[in-house]
Amino acid sequence: MTEAAPESERPEPLRPGPDHEDENEFGVSPELVNAVRDDLDDGRIGEVEAVVSDLHAADLADLVEQIGPEHRGALIDILRPQFDGEIFAYLSQSLREMVLDQLEPREIAAAVAELESDDAIDLIEDLDADQQREILENLPPETRALVEEGLTFPEYSAGRLMSRDLVSVPQFWTVGKTLDYLRTETDNLPEDFYDIFIVDPMHKVVGAIPLSRIMRQKRSVKVGDILTEDIRTITATTDQEEVAFLFRQYGLVSAPVVDGNGRLLGVITVDDVVDVIDEEAEDDLLKLSGVPDTDIYRAVLDTTRSRFTWLFINLLTAILASSVIALFEATIEQIVALAVLMPIVASMGGNAGTQTLTVTVRALAMRELSNTNAVRVVAKEALVGTINGTLFAVIIGLVAGFWFQDHLLGIVIASAMIINLFIAGLCGTLIPLGLARLKIDPAVASAVFLTTVTDVVGFFAFLGLAALILM
Amino acid sequence: MTEAAPESERPEPLRPGPDHEDENEFGVSPELVNAVRDDLDDGRIGEVEAVVSDLHAADLADLVEQIGPEHRGALIDILRPQFDGEIFAYLSQSLREMVLDQLEPREIAAAVAELESDDAIDLIEDLDADQQREILENLPPETRALVEEGLTFPEYSAGRLMSRDLVSVPQFWTVGKTLDYLRTETDNLPEDFYDIFIVDPMHKVVGAIPLSRIMRQKRSVKVGDILTEDIRTITATTDQEEVAFLFRQYGLVSAPVVDGNGRLLGVITVDDVVDVIDEEAEDDLLKLSGVPDTDIYRAVLDTTRSRFTWLFINLLTAILASSVIALFEATIEQIVALAVLMPIVASMGGNAGTQTLTVTVRALAMRELSNTNAVRVVAKEALVGTINGTLFAVIIGLVAGFWFQDHLLGIVIASAMIINLFIAGLCGTLIPLGLARLKIDPAVASAVFLTTVTDVVGFFAFLGLAALILM
Repeated sequence: MTEAAPESERPEPLRPGPDHEDENEFGVSPELVNAVRDDLDDGRIGEVEAVVSDLHAADLADLVEQIGPEHRGALIDILRPQFDGEIFAYLSQSLREMVLDQLEPREIAAAVAELESDDAIDLIEDLDADQQREILENLPPETRALVEEGLTFPEYSAGRLMSRDLVSVPQFWTVGKTLDYLRTETDNLPEDFYDIFIVDPMHKVVGAIPLSRIMRQKRSVKVGDILTEDIRTITATTDQEEVAFLFRQYGLVSAPVVDGNGRLLGVITVDDVVDVIDEEAEDDLLKLSGVPDTDIYRAVLDTTRSRFTWLFINLLTAILASSVIALFEATIEQIVALAVLMPIVASMGGNAGTQTLTVTVRALAMRELSNTNAVRVVAKEALVGTINGTLFAVIIGLVAGFWFQDHLLGIVIASAMIINLFIAGLCGTLIPLGLARLKIDPAVASAVFLTTVTDVVGFFAFLGLAALILM
Repeated sequence: MTEAAPESERPEPLRPGPDHEDENEFGVSPELVNAVRDDLDDGRIGEVEAVVSDLHAADLADLVEQIGPEHRGALIDILRPQFDGEIFAYLSQSLREMVLDQLEPREIAAAVAELESDDAIDLIEDLDADQQREILENLPPETRALVEEGLTFPEYSAGRLMSRDLVSVPQFWTVGKTLDYLRTETDNLPEDFYDIFIVDPMHKVVGAIPLSRIMRQKRSVKVGDILTEDIRTITATTDQEEVAFLFRQYGLVSAPVVDGNGRLLGVITVDDVVDVIDEEAEDDLLKLSGVPDTDIYRAVLDTTRSRFTWLFINLLTAILASSVIALFEATIEQIVALAVLMPIVASMGGNAGTQTLTVTVRALAMRELSNTNAVRVVAKEALVGTINGTLFAVIIGLVAGFWFQDHLLGIVIASAMIINLFIAGLCGTLIPLGLARLKIDPAVASAVFLTTVTDVVGFFAFLGLAALILM
């Protein structure tokens, strides 16, 4: 036997292994981005072409995003002769528009024609009517028909998410006939699939067989005898949030989409759902902070405009809070310590309320909160607010009493703290629950309402009690 | 031909279709929860047993969660004779602990023995050492060995996520031999799988073949000739966040996990990754609001304690802001209008900064922000802050000038607004970027630093300028 090869000569694993310290094991590295920038600066087009030809569409999209505005145009010019339509699926919204503007309708149509129907719809649905028409006219008739049909389903519905490429066989077929069909019909089948759907003569779904199970069966068995009847069927008009819930809840990999009569239309696979889950979680986060529909690649003026609305609403609520303070000008004039201490009560209320609000909004999104436990959760949060309010009342009461050598002032701020943290717990749950019942997205509007309440109550309780007790 | 059956007699689709108006198409309905409560109250154990025997483990977990503390014990007593271990995978953390406390170690071990090794590890890793030992001792030796080995991998690593049940065949096998192996070895194969991994004699992964592709091949073809070499291999020590990135980036359904020498250890499937993606997105949201590690089922005192820390830090920063105000007591004593207006500047700064912060934290998590574009993003956000600051300076300057009939006061608040919104944009990006560089999770600590800065700068700029200009 020969000796084992020394460490350095051993074959490399397919991808960097554990010796590789860099966290960015996968994806586009900053070094790659910089190298492409340098190549573009120095006009080494051939080298850039070589680099991009090796990249997955998702990595190409990252490269387009990260290369920056100075080099982006030149990079796209290199990609445009055979622009990979899949790149669009991975590009952030604002860059997608930018790239579409740079390409000719004919080039876009060529890229779209290569896509599966769900990706094509995902791209085209965001364009304006003129652009849509122009691209649709340049598509091959069959793709065009599928895309146009897909666009008839409501936005954010299963009908838009689903792919039309699927494998379905009649229930009277045998395993052997099905396997032969898969082997001969290669060109008409989707590249990857995980379930074979079984349909009756009306093309209604009667069940499914996962690939990993049909392979273990004898050729003579009828598919109708081994199918799983208990599958989750999605109607085309179902909201994508519902679809995401279904996949997450039951750990699905693919699910059939049917029309109102139960007839098989398409299939949704888990990779499409991962995007939806990502978007929905991100949506909650961004909406709660008042930055809906954004990404870091948006232009300055666009970004400014999108933030303005939320800040303007906040200005109005801040002025409302100020007018509460104005009611007590005379009191503050006599006891300036009130002006010093008053932001503390409002700020603690806002923070405690936001904690409760975030938990509530997330529980609503994850369907952990419903009519069956709403009362209990509201009561619990109000109680948590009161307990923490009492603890912080003791702390801030002592701090304020010693700071201004006035124990009555300590009692005033302590009382205001308890009131505001109780209100914060109550409103942190009631506001999102109320909005949800009114079918308003609680993530969007809750935070404004909540901080208005905690500011107004915080200032009013503190200054009002001060006017009553200290004057 | 007979007439079409009238609407009501047509066979129902497998699951409620589009006529079904209720949004809760899937999962446990509030009606079901209430029915089970009533049955438990009236001692109709048999009816509860009938209901639960039909439910998927995920729905059972939802039922345990939503039924409420008064009925939970009774429900678990009904489930315990054949407690389905999969329920644990779907239960929220705090209820998982509660249920584990109610079951005997022997019952838990019986439930765990039924689980795939990744789910078993997910359950056991959170227990204390005594509980772990007790359950491990009650497991069948083979399961126990797998679980113990899994626990040797770092928390949140691919090694903990992976399942040991997979299908691998040597590269010299033919398609026919592989298919025969799948058909005869049914008992030793995982229930569902999507890829067949091809290994060399050292058990190193050399490639993979998706099931949907091997089925289309002739029996005589060698698997080594049709395998996909360009697969993404994950080392067992890789962080789960990295794994989620990989699945999301390339739309994977399963990926092989290898040891430091490239030898095949296990497989990660997309359903495990969906959970990770959910957790990570939720983590960012909850951490930004100061409520890490929480769920709505946590007990009152636990919840109070977990919120206290964050609120205490906020109290310290609020006191810091107050001490800035205290510097200007003499100024406020003479111009009380300052006390009325001063929260506006601080509040607008806090909100504008939070908008920027949220976008930045999310972009860091999604790896859209790196060294290659950090400078540009910081500059852009500072510019956006300055532009919005100028717009709001005009608005608030006019409002304050008219309100207090003092145009100099208007100029003071306008100037403070520009300064604070510029600082908000700058710090909303620099703070999370700085924390990320220091390897501190930017979602946890950013918000406290940011609001401290915008409060202190807001009060100092406004009151300081007032002292300079108005006195």
